[in-house]
Amino acid sequence: MATALQQQTRDTFDKAFRPTSVAIVGASDDPQRISGRSLHYLKHAGYEGSIYPINPRRAYVQGLKAYPSIADVPVTPDIALICLPVNMVKQALTDCVERGVGAAIVYASGFAETGDDGRALQDELGAIARAGGLRLFGPNCLGLLHARSRFIGTFSSAFDDAFPTPGPVAIVSQSGAYGGHLAYLCRARNIGVGYWISTGNEADTDVSDCIKWLAQQDDVRVIMAYAEGVRDGERFIDALRTAHENRKAVVFMKVGESESGAVAAQSHTASLAGADAVFDGVFRQYGVHRARTTEEQVDIAYACSRGIYPASRRLGIITVSGGFGIQLCDAAERHALDVAPLPDAARSKLKELNPLGSDNNPCDTTAGWLNDMSLITKTFDIMYSDGGYDSMVGAFTMLPASPTYGERIKDAIRAGTQAYMDRPTVLCMEAGAETVRSYEDAGFLIYTDSDRATRSLSTLATLREGFERKSVQPPADPTLRRDLGSGPLSEASAQTLLADAGIPFLPSRVVKSATAAVDAASNLGYPVVMKIVSPDILHKTEIGGVMLNIADDQGAADAYQTLITRAADKAPDAYIEGVLVTPMANKGIETIIGVTRDPVFGPVVMFGLGGIFAELFRDVSFRAAPFDRDEALRMIGETQGYPLLKGFRGAPAADIGALADLLQRLSAFAAANAAQLETIDLNPVIALPQGQGVLALDAVLVTRGQ
Amino acid sequence: MATALQQQTRDTFDKAFRPTSVAIVGASDDPQRISGRSLHYLKHAGYEGSIYPINPRRAYVQGLKAYPSIADVPVTPDIALICLPVNMVKQALTDCVERGVGAAIVYASGFAETGDDGRALQDELGAIARAGGLRLFGPNCLGLLHARSRFIGTFSSAFDDAFPTPGPVAIVSQSGAYGGHLAYLCRARNIGVGYWISTGNEADTDVSDCIKWLAQQDDVRVIMAYAEGVRDGERFIDALRTAHENRKAVVFMKVGESESGAVAAQSHTASLAGADAVFDGVFRQYGVHRARTTEEQVDIAYACSRGIYPASRRLGIITVSGGFGIQLCDAAERHALDVAPLPDAARSKLKELNPLGSDNNPCDTTAGWLNDMSLITKTFDIMYSDGGYDSMVGAFTMLPASPTYGERIKDAIRAGTQAYMDRPTVLCMEAGAETVRSYEDAGFLIYTDSDRATRSLSTLATLREGFERKSVQPPADPTLRRDLGSGPLSEASAQTLLADAGIPFLPSRVVKSATAAVDAASNLGYPVVMKIVSPDILHKTEIGGVMLNIADDQGAADAYQTLITRAADKAPDAYIEGVLVTPMANKGIETIIGVTRDPVFGPVVMFGLGGIFAELFRDVSFRAAPFDRDEALRMIGETQGYPLLKGFRGAPAADIGALADLLQRLSAFAAANAAQLETIDLNPVIALPQGQGVLALDAVLVTRGQ
Repeated sequence: MATALQQQTRDTFDKAFRPTSVAIVGASDDPQRISGRSLHYLKHAGYEGSIYPINPRRAYVQGLKAYPSIADVPVTPDIALICLPVNMVKQALTDCVERGVGAAIVYASGFAETGDDGRALQDELGAIARAGGLRLFGPNCLGLLHARSRFIGTFSSAFDDAFPTPGPVAIVSQSGAYGGHLAYLCRARNIGVGYWISTGNEADTDVSDCIKWLAQQDDVRVIMAYAEGVRDGERFIDALRTAHENRKAVVFMKVGESESGAVAAQSHTASLAGADAVFDGVFRQYGVHRARTTEEQVDIAYACSRGIYPASRRLGIITVSGGFGIQLCDAAERHALDVAPLPDAARSKLKELNPLGSDNNPCDTTAGWLNDMSLITKTFDIMYSDGGYDSMVGAFTMLPASPTYGERIKDAIRAGTQAYMDRPTVLCMEAGAETVRSYEDAGFLIYTDSDRATRSLSTLATLREGFERKSVQPPADPTLRRDLGSGPLSEASAQTLLADAGIPFLPSRVVKSATAAVDAASNLGYPVVMKIVSPDILHKTEIGGVMLNIADDQGAADAYQTLITRAADKAPDAYIEGVLVTPMANKGIETIIGVTRDPVFGPVVMFGLGGIFAELFRDVSFRAAPFDRDEALRMIGETQGYPLLKGFRGAPAADIGALADLLQRLSAFAAANAAQLETIDLNPVIALPQGQGVLALDAVLVTRGQ
Repeated sequence: MATALQQQTRDTFDKAFRPTSVAIVGASDDPQRISGRSLHYLKHAGYEGSIYPINPRRAYVQGLKAYPSIADVPVTPDIALICLPVNMVKQALTDCVERGVGAAIVYASGFAETGDDGRALQDELGAIARAGGLRLFGPNCLGLLHARSRFIGTFSSAFDDAFPTPGPVAIVSQSGAYGGHLAYLCRARNIGVGYWISTGNEADTDVSDCIKWLAQQDDVRVIMAYAEGVRDGERFIDALRTAHENRKAVVFMKVGESESGAVAAQSHTASLAGADAVFDGVFRQYGVHRARTTEEQVDIAYACSRGIYPASRRLGIITVSGGFGIQLCDAAERHALDVAPLPDAARSKLKELNPLGSDNNPCDTTAGWLNDMSLITKTFDIMYSDGGYDSMVGAFTMLPASPTYGERIKDAIRAGTQAYMDRPTVLCMEAGAETVRSYEDAGFLIYTDSDRATRSLSTLATLREGFERKSVQPPADPTLRRDLGSGPLSEASAQTLLADAGIPFLPSRVVKSATAAVDAASNLGYPVVMKIVSPDILHKTEIGGVMLNIADDQGAADAYQTLITRAADKAPDAYIEGVLVTPMANKGIETIIGVTRDPVFGPVVMFGLGGIFAELFRDVSFRAAPFDRDEALRMIGETQGYPLLKGFRGAPAADIGALADLLQRLSAFAAANAAQLETIDLNPVIALPQGQGVLALDAVLVTRGQ
């Protein structure tokens, strides 16, 4: 159920993108100026709503009747474009609120990006908007547009020579320049863009609001997003969840991953950027494709724009020269596609059809079929029907550009694929824009480069896998909420809390004398480990507070004394609760599991293999808490060290299911206790052989109060 | 000094690419047919040499006087294009040899690619050519061309609508279709191609011959190569060495890296493909850039075509919008470029120049300078002169396409960079082909994508680093040659041989009694390791033939008996030389070093860190033997585990220099004994802390006779 605010946002966005009337505050008669360009665009784009230029110094602006103030406009506009300089914005926004305008765009720069004074002014704008029930876009933004209703509420020069052709792609970008660049590239690639938004400094509405609303539009299939940082993780996740539920592909460029880039991001916006690896985890969690380059972002959006996703990674390859087949195989393997061999019956058919060509996958047809185009038709048909491939790549080099063959090749491939239009057929080819377009109109995806083609098909498969997942994030479970207090917690207390939440530890006892230690150890069974217990000593090994492999009663008694003496020497002020006695763990694979509080996303859970995996290779994965067991399994599976858990070189497989249970439970605990929790470290967690479970050997829990 | 054959090859290639006369054997009157197209091309390309069509059935072919046989041609042609079907090729080639023709191209297919009969016929062609002193191109190839002399000796449809513009790029490809594709892409990218060769089945001349000859041409700066396999590693390396010595950039697409690709490669050519990781090593050794995608191959060739390489990885970034700066930082970090900060003095200058822009690297100029273009000129000048960057990227999005600004922006950047034309300035921009070309003519490299731009700059830096290396492969040292015998070698014998070659082992003794074992152990110092010594037991641990950590005399005596008993039990037929006693090694980092005989390159040396690094991550590097110490250092440095050797998290650095010495010596030994050597395994080699050297703890040497 949508809340009242959500419903208001939705209604406001509906009107903002498809307004029946728009006021242009500060409209200029000069269409070259920022304050004149929006009006110029609207007039020439074919916008059919009412346009009210606001300009107290002119009776007419660009031929339209002007009004001295927004109060004078005959109807309440659905949206106001505020084209005034920074010092006049606040008054104009206040006027809009008073007039009851639902949404406003502020173009002016000079706000948070310039320093504290600008930030204060920006915060004021946000407060005015919220108090007045107006949704604000910007400031320091380039506006928005809706292609179908021809509402061009932007002055971006990207639309200087053409407005977007309506289509299934939406673009939302914090950077107006980058958003404009994407729009330009989409046009060059024949990708229809239905919605375009630049969110700028995000005093009120932000990328999350926009993604969520776009994900609810029936005519949107793909959302291309660009962000340097995200302030509110919860709303961001809510937006991604909506997109996931509605099977919208989100192709995200999140920049600032490099150190130098992060510095530039800070100086450019005032965003609070979450750790990059956490963003990776959240994107995976919600099936978002994270693009690393602009070319990739456009390639993937292009592939998704058809809304056709392969049911598996099985790829058929058809080429006119063997060399291209080898290259495509290499590329397919790089991108985790499966170039599965053709069944024998199909091979026989191909051999009979085209004795000079190859009879397998990849299928090198050679160029002999140019004299008999039905050959290529039948080859596609056999590969699809008998090979059962869920997508196909054909490499045709420059042949489609040939005046002699181009059109006939297209028809021949079309005839061979028309029964399989529910699977993506990609052609790698070089030709002029017009020819490419005619192939696209025939239903094919066209790439020039085989690597980019296979990467795109692989991403389509991954996106479909994401769509198929039922629930990506269960609701938080309030029954797991505990009072963690605000002071430090000893390991024993942390263990008790976490054991109660379902985290498996070895049995243990806290003892306060050497005699009790001997008693506990002999009951638990030798060999044992003994550790000092104190809320004031978080890093026990540093003071020699952990002793391993204690073999007998004498050893246990000695160890107790040693630990107490060391604590007294090295941490004289620490409150000592006693000594923890626990059996030595069986051998298994060391993993490291933890929870940290991300400034954007709140509690996030980390998983990695111990030792150099985590430390040298940073081979860890993250997820926002809480998540279910399937998500935990994916989280484990995406680490590089995963093959070790599956049983490497004859070693027994580890109990991966028990690891996933632990991660799921820890995530539920972390989510339920987010308000009080800072970090949890379970290091190591031993993954025992399959069927024997897992054991956390150590627990450190830090509360936010500390 | 070139040998007589090398000189002959060079002379023949000179004539083949720039012939004063050419015979077209089997020339057809129909310019659409393969046998007519070469003649058609030659007539229309402006070729100024003599053309002799050979056709016994016609007096004139395409308007030129025809000759019944090559014997009838008035002068001996420099090259013959044999356009006949497979069954007529042998006779035609024999005729060419008899006429004294220096070079011939055979287009026909139907040879080794079709099976054993075809292969036999192909071998015959090779033998005829070699015996007759003729150099043969093909069969199953698309010929060759030289743009400047307008000699178009090919029927590739890639040149159907335009012949290449002469330029610094040469293309050599085993696949004619791929070679044609590259030529097409180069034309689209405004890259001049001076030489183009398709080598086909390589019955005689091959990719190596072509690369070597091209590397000796003054007007070639870049060689784009494509190969599915290489038969003769020695000549291949010789060709790469020549390119390296002459500072020619080689941009290589070697396909068949994937398993499915390798299968396709085998079915497509009859090449013997070396292991892919070995190719990687050889390419690195000779400073060759290995491209993984066609797009990358063209991008890098384009960047190299100017012949301007940055002196360092320091990169300056100038953008018109902050978002692009962040993206470029991310991309630069991905590609190991250094976005070094601007010195304070330069920052002040920028601040004064453009108060609204940023004053650091990356420098976001914002778009204010569109009203005063001198701002952008000065920004480039300050960044180059005061920042000292060795290359620069400017991100200008669609601005250069603007009719208003495009030309002036170009002039402004040109003015700011003209004093730095010895450093590459790359512009990321979107514009029409004509505009892009005008920017290129002004001296800039133009890319649309920031990732591809930075990748190309990074590769330029890597190529320059490669060029700067003095010698990449020392000559083999015959004094290291030993008689390895042909039978099996015991570890003790292998150790003796390798120790003599400078490989450090722990001191050890082979003993034949328990008393002698005690004597040896107490002399070497406890604790010791004891191992069974037998040429018949290569994997000692499998029979329990290694005992560690023997602490005293009693232990040594017991261990001797245990080892002898185990050997008698588990390997009753093995000849037992005795028991090897050696001290326990100090602690260090385990590495794995070996030599294997590659089918293409002969002895190659492998280096990796032990354990999961080598086994799970395949984190190993290869080099062809022999190599020098610097190459060994690079080989060590390119493994992912390298940070562990440098001293990770406070651990002491390992003696990397001693590791490099060992690798260099092992490579020299392997090269000198290539004829008798199959494999060497030194596993593990312990890298001790800096200054303490390295120790091989185990040696297995297998000779080819075994």
